[in-house]
Amino acid sequence: MAKITKLNHVAIAVNDVDGSLGFWRDAMGLAVDHIEDVPSQKAVVAFIPVGDSEVELVKPTSEDTGVAKFLAERGGGMHHLCFEVDDIDAMLVQLKEKGVRLINETPQVLPGRKMAFVHPKSTGGVLVELYQLTTEA
Amino acid sequence: MAKITKLNHVAIAVNDVDGSLGFWRDAMGLAVDHIEDVPSQKAVVAFIPVGDSEVELVKPTSEDTGVAKFLAERGGGMHHLCFEVDDIDAMLVQLKEKGVRLINETPQVLPGRKMAFVHPKSTGGVLVELYQLTTEA
Repeated sequence: MAKITKLNHVAIAVNDVDGSLGFWRDAMGLAVDHIEDVPSQKAVVAFIPVGDSEVELVKPTSEDTGVAKFLAERGGGMHHLCFEVDDIDAMLVQLKEKGVRLINETPQVLPGRKMAFVHPKSTGGVLVELYQLTTEA
Repeated sequence: MAKITKLNHVAIAVNDVDGSLGFWRDAMGLAVDHIEDVPSQKAVVAFIPVGDSEVELVKPTSEDTGVAKFLAERGGGMHHLCFEVDDIDAMLVQLKEKGVRLINETPQVLPGRKMAFVHPKSTGGVLVELYQLTTEA
């Protein structure tokens, strides 16, 4: 059975990365690891390590993304949870066998990771992302 | 300066703890540490460790709680993020100095922890809880 090993990050949709850092960095005192344009997500992301996990502030750079739609509908807030798994292919099979609805039936392969999203209809309203970290980063 | 040390938990509002475990435990394969009635939160909570953090499934036992209102408005989903801090009193002073709106101006003292909520108006839509773990558990 594939195993979830940790919470990789909590993604927070924001309209303004700099403005959001007024809370997360300047008021809460968290250190920003880096801010990066992530074309595969069509977003600028601020990576903020917290203990063994991360807060990611995600500002869309295109209006056709899920995060952009989320922002338009709800304003900012928690967008998804990302869990690391030791074997994402096995996990997707396991989820399908349990009747869980997947957004990605097969993992997307990106530098350093394989990823897939699970549909919130099957999770009680939580958009769940799965990561398997890979060595070909 | 007070320091955030880790993400203690992600709280997920659920209408049905057993039903939700169909995803988190049975499909994702996560182990439930315990399920507990928490009168201070007017909720039944399933505690699910994930790495160094936790997923908490929160089912309200009273209709007058924030989680119950959230469920009525949105159905289930991510409700709040809880961060551990080494000195919650100093953190609340620090947040107020930065103009952050607090739900609890002073910490609530519970067995094993002091806690306070930060208003989502000041965080970009994320309900943030702060915990300082204490030894008098």
